[in-house]
Amino acid sequence: MLRTHTCGQLRISDVNKEVTLTGWVQRTRDKGSLLWIDLRDRYGITQLFLEEGKTDASLLKIARETGREYVLKVNGLVVERLSKNDKMPTGDVEVKVSSLEILNASKVPPFTIEDNTDGGDDLRMKYRYLDLRRNTVRENLQLRHKMAQQTRIYLDSLNFIEVETPVLIKSTPEGARDFVVPSRMNPGEFYALPQSPQTFKQLLMVSGFDRYYQIVKCFRDEDLRADRQPEFTQIDCEMAFITQEDILSTFEGLVRHLFKTVKGIDMPSVPHMSYDDAMKFYGSDKPDTRFDMKFVELNSVAQGKGFQVFDSAELVVGICAKGCAEYTRKQLDELTEFVKKPQIGAKGLVYVQCKADGTFKSSVDKFYTADDLTKWAELMNAQAGDLMLVLSGEKEKTQKGLSELRLRMGEVLGLRDKNKFSALWVIDFPLLEWNEEINRWHAMHHPFTSPKPDDMHLLDSDPGKVRANAYDMVINGTEVGGGSIRIHDRTTQQLMFSKLGFSDEEAKKQFGFLMDAFEFGAPPHGGIAFGFDRLCSLFGGSDSIRDFIAFPKNNSGRDMMIDTPSTISAEQLKELSIDVKIKH
Amino acid sequence: MLRTHTCGQLRISDVNKEVTLTGWVQRTRDKGSLLWIDLRDRYGITQLFLEEGKTDASLLKIARETGREYVLKVNGLVVERLSKNDKMPTGDVEVKVSSLEILNASKVPPFTIEDNTDGGDDLRMKYRYLDLRRNTVRENLQLRHKMAQQTRIYLDSLNFIEVETPVLIKSTPEGARDFVVPSRMNPGEFYALPQSPQTFKQLLMVSGFDRYYQIVKCFRDEDLRADRQPEFTQIDCEMAFITQEDILSTFEGLVRHLFKTVKGIDMPSVPHMSYDDAMKFYGSDKPDTRFDMKFVELNSVAQGKGFQVFDSAELVVGICAKGCAEYTRKQLDELTEFVKKPQIGAKGLVYVQCKADGTFKSSVDKFYTADDLTKWAELMNAQAGDLMLVLSGEKEKTQKGLSELRLRMGEVLGLRDKNKFSALWVIDFPLLEWNEEINRWHAMHHPFTSPKPDDMHLLDSDPGKVRANAYDMVINGTEVGGGSIRIHDRTTQQLMFSKLGFSDEEAKKQFGFLMDAFEFGAPPHGGIAFGFDRLCSLFGGSDSIRDFIAFPKNNSGRDMMIDTPSTISAEQLKELSIDVKIKH
Repeated sequence: MLRTHTCGQLRISDVNKEVTLTGWVQRTRDKGSLLWIDLRDRYGITQLFLEEGKTDASLLKIARETGREYVLKVNGLVVERLSKNDKMPTGDVEVKVSSLEILNASKVPPFTIEDNTDGGDDLRMKYRYLDLRRNTVRENLQLRHKMAQQTRIYLDSLNFIEVETPVLIKSTPEGARDFVVPSRMNPGEFYALPQSPQTFKQLLMVSGFDRYYQIVKCFRDEDLRADRQPEFTQIDCEMAFITQEDILSTFEGLVRHLFKTVKGIDMPSVPHMSYDDAMKFYGSDKPDTRFDMKFVELNSVAQGKGFQVFDSAELVVGICAKGCAEYTRKQLDELTEFVKKPQIGAKGLVYVQCKADGTFKSSVDKFYTADDLTKWAELMNAQAGDLMLVLSGEKEKTQKGLSELRLRMGEVLGLRDKNKFSALWVIDFPLLEWNEEINRWHAMHHPFTSPKPDDMHLLDSDPGKVRANAYDMVINGTEVGGGSIRIHDRTTQQLMFSKLGFSDEEAKKQFGFLMDAFEFGAPPHGGIAFGFDRLCSLFGGSDSIRDFIAFPKNNSGRDMMIDTPSTISAEQLKELSIDVKIKH
Repeated sequence: MLRTHTCGQLRISDVNKEVTLTGWVQRTRDKGSLLWIDLRDRYGITQLFLEEGKTDASLLKIARETGREYVLKVNGLVVERLSKNDKMPTGDVEVKVSSLEILNASKVPPFTIEDNTDGGDDLRMKYRYLDLRRNTVRENLQLRHKMAQQTRIYLDSLNFIEVETPVLIKSTPEGARDFVVPSRMNPGEFYALPQSPQTFKQLLMVSGFDRYYQIVKCFRDEDLRADRQPEFTQIDCEMAFITQEDILSTFEGLVRHLFKTVKGIDMPSVPHMSYDDAMKFYGSDKPDTRFDMKFVELNSVAQGKGFQVFDSAELVVGICAKGCAEYTRKQLDELTEFVKKPQIGAKGLVYVQCKADGTFKSSVDKFYTADDLTKWAELMNAQAGDLMLVLSGEKEKTQKGLSELRLRMGEVLGLRDKNKFSALWVIDFPLLEWNEEINRWHAMHHPFTSPKPDDMHLLDSDPGKVRANAYDMVINGTEVGGGSIRIHDRTTQQLMFSKLGFSDEEAKKQFGFLMDAFEFGAPPHGGIAFGFDRLCSLFGGSDSIRDFIAFPKNNSGRDMMIDTPSTISAEQLKELSIDVKIKH
């Protein structure tokens, strides 16, 4: 090694040692007679100093030539600092430089390498290798590393085997679009990149592998919304000879292990909530349970009092915002504007202020007496000082709208602390959902998810009512993982494909190998996949998964640093038997 | 869990326990009054039995319906076996079945699920999910899992960080062909799949990550020879602020750690050998050092004696095959035929038998006296009973031919034991090699490899003489890993690209980001990549990497199980702005 110590290592106990350090110049302070250099590496910062008169003049000259981000190798003596800096672990000492070598120069970086940089997003992405020098970004990737290691340690301890599944697979244009790869050796044919290793992990169960996992790249050619990446990473798992409860407890264990080992947090056991309850109480299948503010249905007390808006509504439903009774007109108007935004689309917002003196002030005073509103308050457990907020209309839309309002109020009231974590299993999802665009049923999870045996009889008569053995893990209102018990027999799988509008031929072409496999002794099995980028960002307290990916792509799927995608040569196209055909 | 124990778990101490097992029917023996079933899972085999008269008749009936590979769940009592089987860990006990449920039926599998199966290669690949049920194949993948885990444990302990680098990158048609991926959102543009994360890991060094690793899929669109896969896995590593020695000792440490923890073998420290010596003594840059049989140059003693073949040769070189003096005419002819094969292309083989009585018998007796041959024997350390085998001709070709003969003799003499391991660092590789086809210099390792500073002055005058800071790890004659100290300044990198025939523009288009990065304080760095599939197969004592890949492709790059590559829809092609253009 070119160094004897790292820049994060030296302590008071090292005083009088001769050391060699390497690293980058973080900053230089030149007081004329004294020159200080802060030398930085991945492990920390150590202060170097050179003194006029006591240091070789040529050495001082070289030191004065170094600028920000120069790479140095220095020898020197560790000495105790006169003015210690208790904010840095090496702050008790400094290194009196006896020799100094510039290992590499640096141009002035396009933005400052500081926690709060002056670099904009585009600039930081173009020079990502400099952005990665910033503590915050490096710490994110160190967190990610630790998450991956601890995931493996936990799953290894339970006899899971990591098996690599192929990346060059087959296009199955269900769900999102596949990225495809032309095959040179098989002209006119293509591989596809996996959206998930779903069928392979199921085949591993058929093979008797019993407990599989993989931390694996997956790919989706989607129109990228903010914070979607064309390539992303999953913790992908599957188990055989299990019930749903086994999977929930095993992977609740994983998440608790991660919280304990990575964050030092003792996570309580994770409650289960049915999809129906999640919708009923939170209007969302991924409720943020860091705070309560549950939905309360008010149909029984709000309807039949002559308020036409409520009377004609399928659902009247409210939340109670604790301590918000004294909201001003302006604040209430803002909330009304919020729910009327096109994305939410409520027609209006009814509020009831529960005044300190026990009276109510509401936007519907002319329809409801104090007695009426007392009943509302009782149902909603609203006390003096609280604010009831009520939406009405078509059920699903109203639930969705109130869910947004609830999150907004949680935000406003500081109930969504990034350092607080609340996890939840949402279970008993519907098997199918109606897709308006293509006018047919669509698998809510995926076509391999097993219907609940008790609901099988509804598959023909009332498909929307059939529940699946499917589950999501939700943390702080984010779906971090989801999975299901799988179908493991050919008949059910075929039935499922036909319900989803596959012809027998299509089903056989795309998934024939899986259905064949089911005929050779497939065991009962199920699994789960966690979105690893998302899980890391959640643990890191960030909303952006890009902060936790070393070399992310932008919203056009472009890597700004290496400038890709890019054109390829005519020769390459010819070898691949393809032509580019751009519409003008 | 559907089971209380696995099929590999029960011992004599479990007698009298009520247990539930799940697994596959390995075989059934029906003696009329007694029925035995061997139930198999990943962990082992347990014998079940049912007794006529003592077992419920309906239970016996169900049991008799089960065939090979049926999936069962059984309850029963653990009892001591009358005739124990000490070949299986569960051989002391059997389970007296009290209830039995068929979890899934199985068609008769197309080949036997046994260590020595009757299935051919194609059949096993088509039904890979059944092939994976075989102990040998499963054990290979378990070995692979263990290798990956131990690799991570070792590197973690040395502060290496695992960082995921992108899979959708930029096509740089140096070296092998890239697989490319059309970008829908950027019509006419393509991503490429990485042949290695080379530039990204170097950028991580520029970022100060210091010690990086990744066990990562890489891709090469090559014409597949036997045992090449279009997707393969590397242990990819890079370090900053190091010398070549640091890298060699760190990764020698990795390999020794793997031998210790995975195979229980204490590996001695790994010797270093220069490329020149490897060629001189073994005729190969990846010598099999499990056995000695070094080359001995005989020019000084074999030339000038009137034997035209030797006199006109650039090199006369031999090996001594211990104890082979009594080879028959037929055996010697076979060796001659071997070296005359077109792949080797020697014109002939000279042999000298060192007889027990001290005399010599050779194919060149009329040119050489006993005194002459005594000198050969002295140089080659040949004793009575040994056989000297000598080739001659143009230097490199002769070395290559003798290398093949040496390996052949090692094989014949049983010196290439798959359970014996010998590792070697080959160092000081040439930087460049002349490519006859394209009539220019080509980077022997890759264009990012650093020339030895002492040889830089030869770069213009005698490029072939310039040595690189490059190294390979060779085990048992197989290159398992290779790497180099990298160039870390723009000037040298640009010079290198120009020597390799890149125009400035091409270099900038393809690798501009890397050269830019070098201008912002790039530290000295270097790294290595191990072929993980190959390393696993070597540890597993197999010549085939396919045996260590869960779902391999065949020699046409085709996955026979899922039947890919395959055609995609016209709609997909249109969305991707490409056309298929097949030459007829």
